Amino acid sequence: MKEQAEFGATEGGGLHRLALSDEDLRVREWFREQMNEEGLAVRIDEFGNMFGRREGTDPSADPVLVGSHLDSQPYGGIYDGALGVVAALELIRTLNDEGIETAHPIEIVNWTNEEGSRFQPAMQGSGIWAGVYDLEEEYAKTDADGVVLEDELERIGYKGTEPCEPRHDYEAYLELHIEQGPYLEQGGYDVGIVTGIVGFTWGAITFRGEADHSGPTPMHHRNDALVAAADVITGIRRIPGTLGERTVGTVGYIESQPNSINIIPGEVTFTWGVRDRDAVIVEEARERVLAEAEAAAEREGVEWEFEDRMSVDPVDFSDQCTDAINRAADALELDSLELFGGAGHDAVHMTELMDTGMVFAVSEDGKSHNESEYTSWEDCYSAAATAINAAYELTIER
Amino acid sequence: MKEQAEFGATEGGGLHRLALSDEDLRVREWFREQMNEEGLAVRIDEFGNMFGRREGTDPSADPVLVGSHLDSQPYGGIYDGALGVVAALELIRTLNDEGIETAHPIEIVNWTNEEGSRFQPAMQGSGIWAGVYDLEEEYAKTDADGVVLEDELERIGYKGTEPCEPRHDYEAYLELHIEQGPYLEQGGYDVGIVTGIVGFTWGAITFRGEADHSGPTPMHHRNDALVAAADVITGIRRIPGTLGERTVGTVGYIESQPNSINIIPGEVTFTWGVRDRDAVIVEEARERVLAEAEAAAEREGVEWEFEDRMSVDPVDFSDQCTDAINRAADALELDSLELFGGAGHDAVHMTELMDTGMVFAVSEDGKSHNESEYTSWEDCYSAAATAINAAYELTIER
Repeated sequence: MKEQAEFGATEGGGLHRLALSDEDLRVREWFREQMNEEGLAVRIDEFGNMFGRREGTDPSADPVLVGSHLDSQPYGGIYDGALGVVAALELIRTLNDEGIETAHPIEIVNWTNEEGSRFQPAMQGSGIWAGVYDLEEEYAKTDADGVVLEDELERIGYKGTEPCEPRHDYEAYLELHIEQGPYLEQGGYDVGIVTGIVGFTWGAITFRGEADHSGPTPMHHRNDALVAAADVITGIRRIPGTLGERTVGTVGYIESQPNSINIIPGEVTFTWGVRDRDAVIVEEARERVLAEAEAAAEREGVEWEFEDRMSVDPVDFSDQCTDAINRAADALELDSLELFGGAGHDAVHMTELMDTGMVFAVSEDGKSHNESEYTSWEDCYSAAATAINAAYELTIER
Repeated sequence: MKEQAEFGATEGGGLHRLALSDEDLRVREWFREQMNEEGLAVRIDEFGNMFGRREGTDPSADPVLVGSHLDSQPYGGIYDGALGVVAALELIRTLNDEGIETAHPIEIVNWTNEEGSRFQPAMQGSGIWAGVYDLEEEYAKTDADGVVLEDELERIGYKGTEPCEPRHDYEAYLELHIEQGPYLEQGGYDVGIVTGIVGFTWGAITFRGEADHSGPTPMHHRNDALVAAADVITGIRRIPGTLGERTVGTVGYIESQPNSINIIPGEVTFTWGVRDRDAVIVEEARERVLAEAEAAAEREGVEWEFEDRMSVDPVDFSDQCTDAINRAADALELDSLELFGGAGHDAVHMTELMDTGMVFAVSEDGKSHNESEYTSWEDCYSAAATAINAAYELTIER
């Protein structure tokens, strides 16, 4: 874990390794070298997804895919994503070191831009690969500075030649990831067996009022875009508690123009997201957010518009995978909890194509997307051993 | 007006001429050239305040000072400040063209950094000159990019040699400015006679919560700095209406970290300001804003701190000046309104030193600090003629 965390390391002990940045390039070069050292056949696809293949003994058996992502949030933690890629490498190393052959081939993968903080949507590389997104549309995406995604892929040399799609059938996909929530730690569990993932919807709302002098403009003469935004932000704090036990809602990004101490904000854009394991609740929450925005716009006398950014339905993982993970955890005498994942992962897109499962490692205090994200070495080991053993079981002839 | 508006012109028909920027340099060079052409003795003081002096016939008479500022808000309008400087030049041109001598000398002035949007506080140059601020402390101020004010003064060549303080007594200060509020237009008046200026206080509040993943972090496990900020922003929309008829409160600036769609905001800083003609109400509003912040911090479980940025007491202008302005407006057969100014102006600091008065020009729809700020040519003329005639009256031997 420590080796990968050097690429994009922050002073605060975290990672700043945005997709397709120089830091992302450096960790990719490291990962490619590791795969070469283990004798894997490396392929880079045209969206930068990186695969390494270890052959199996049965020519008719489909490969088992294992991996996660190496990009990070801005000033995020060193475990999110990277733990799953490192565990996939560890699976290969263990098999090589022990001289173990598997019936099924194994492919390990680093997906491009899982985080979605520089370019949206999140889980972009796996989404294109799974046929959920269109390659050309995603190439054209730009970051906040207007930099085009395809140009960045070319700049860092990771626009590969392999088509961004499955080249054959796959037996299963397994991903190890940190929980990013508090439930495993609070219950004193060693490892989490993920039965499915919440659905979510992300959007952006823009209010357009009137930039005006903050002094001589009477209160009743104002059309303050930031006040309207603040109304909706407090609404989004309140809405989840009226819908479901595990519903969440967040405003993560806000930008105000002209953003000067002495000017009434004329234009404010913010993003919002809501999640729940029930697609009906997600849709209901979206309706309520838009209703709040409309009411706030009317109260403050500002124009408003919204944009849906991304929407993912809840998914259930396959019994084949959760059973294998359960057996692996039991064999290791680990105390495991079956739980629903609260965040999107590349695994969500894999459910379109193959049996899929996920293992969660304990997140200290549930923290993530934060430099102080932490998983103890023991918890990393428990989760990695569970994932590796489950993956191994899936590679045995059936 | 059109000539000065070329320096820092925006595509939207406004001005982007932040204090000590390249655009500010260019308009200063233009202003200096205009003063030279009119035969004024030009002085630049050590804070960049620009003076031009036309001698009077009475060696014992103190000069009348007339002016305003040439810097603008980010993407502000072309009238705010500039109108008063152009009118001061017009006063000199008229006297020169008509060959009129005055008993008192006249000095015209362009004050450095009235707007306070790049460097704070606002009304900085006039404040130092009036002894309200300390020169060395203000030299050390930095903009949002960490650029030091004194370095910028030197870079644009406007750190002059003259001490930044009055070199002698002054008879009076007159400033023409746009109203920036709706009262003149709504009442159908031609010109405003300003009897005083509201007081105000500006501050900044920072909330520090916990940056965390927006998905798996349950609502009750969150410490969302942006939610706390939104609470206070809606509070500041509400507080003025509980205090005074003309009390105003604004949050103009907000910055959220890490500002990513998928992360709960960990740290948010915003600025706020409240104004009223009554200093007691301003202080009461400040107390209420801080009480809102404390309550919001407790609700959301975040740390908070505040910083007072600037505070200016309400001022009343002198009868000598308002009487002269009233007589000038009457002589021009203009329909005038006596009113209180809702914004700080350099004139506020001049009240520390001399009799002071202000003339307001009609602001269409009360708009300012905005590219669409507009005053018709007729309204510019009415206000400039009033100010010029009033200034001339003050320069006659008494």
